[in-house]
Amino acid sequence: MGKGTDTRNEILAAAGRLAGQVGLSGLTIGTLASRTELSKSGLFAHFGSKQDLQLQVHAHNVERFVAEVIRPALRAPRGEPRVRELFERWLAWASMPGGCPMLAASFEFDDQPGPLRERLVRDQRDWFDTITMVFAGGITEGHFAPDADARQFAQDLEGVMLAFHLTSRLLGDADAAARARRSLDALLLAAA
Amino acid sequence: MGKGTDTRNEILAAAGRLAGQVGLSGLTIGTLASRTELSKSGLFAHFGSKQDLQLQVHAHNVERFVAEVIRPALRAPRGEPRVRELFERWLAWASMPGGCPMLAASFEFDDQPGPLRERLVRDQRDWFDTITMVFAGGITEGHFAPDADARQFAQDLEGVMLAFHLTSRLLGDADAAARARRSLDALLLAAA
Repeated sequence: MGKGTDTRNEILAAAGRLAGQVGLSGLTIGTLASRTELSKSGLFAHFGSKQDLQLQVHAHNVERFVAEVIRPALRAPRGEPRVRELFERWLAWASMPGGCPMLAASFEFDDQPGPLRERLVRDQRDWFDTITMVFAGGITEGHFAPDADARQFAQDLEGVMLAFHLTSRLLGDADAAARARRSLDALLLAAA
Repeated sequence: MGKGTDTRNEILAAAGRLAGQVGLSGLTIGTLASRTELSKSGLFAHFGSKQDLQLQVHAHNVERFVAEVIRPALRAPRGEPRVRELFERWLAWASMPGGCPMLAASFEFDDQPGPLRERLVRDQRDWFDTITMVFAGGITEGHFAPDADARQFAQDLEGVMLAFHLTSRLLGDADAAARARRSLDALLLAAA
């Protein structure tokens, strides 16, 4: 990677941290300039507009999520072990400072039509499909009942993680992760 | 109620609708003025600052939530019927245009220290306590097992509603509410 790519990645990382605090909608070329040592005109050279900046930060977050959560989890044995690996990696992701930026963005932009919302919808659909597929692998393996509802599981697991996020980050409840793991156990027991 | 109170309530309702779209952090005296027929100086007479406006809109939302969800649900018979009534009223609340403004705000402000975050934390703690208390009534009534974990249930139910919110509002999935009801049935079955 050349120096330009390095700089761009450093800016995206700084922008991601800022968005983790103020939300993607609070992320502007101006707020980013005051956080980094780069000038507004320098930032405009990398990102043509506020929307472009937000889209690229989101895409950068999704790439990291795929690399840190999805890809490694798919190396676990198919079925229940893979579901558990996906969950643990997702939990670690949601526990990082700032929490999961895609979750926050999903609540921020659900009523704001435009390219960013379209991108969020596409990525969340992909994510629900990934959970559904990984769970369905457990039906094929005989770990879960043949009539277990993989789509229902995807919505339920999303709920477990959202509630963990809220309970740990907003309420500061130290038992949030332990409860989230018990919720997963209950879901898998019901599906068995 | 005098004319002043009426006007204030109308402004708060308009501000609440705007915040439902752009988030509480996007709600400013300026954006509100361009939505209503009131001048910025007129709005400043009602709300001294952007933060004051945000706090009052949030307080107004919480009052409505108590009146439309909590208070009527507490009139249902204690135990499982009251849990179900609370859930159905909460589901109807989260299904209104704009979704649940407190949920959105919880994800928006979880990393922004200040009076609004403190208020959100207090109100979410109260809400978790309400769910916990309503569920615990079902243990006393013998509807749920004596060792059922009411706090676990509160976190799980919060997750069911958060996942409904995301699945219906962002993904536009028409089955989101039916799945949320099945999630509640599964939680109550596991607690029985």
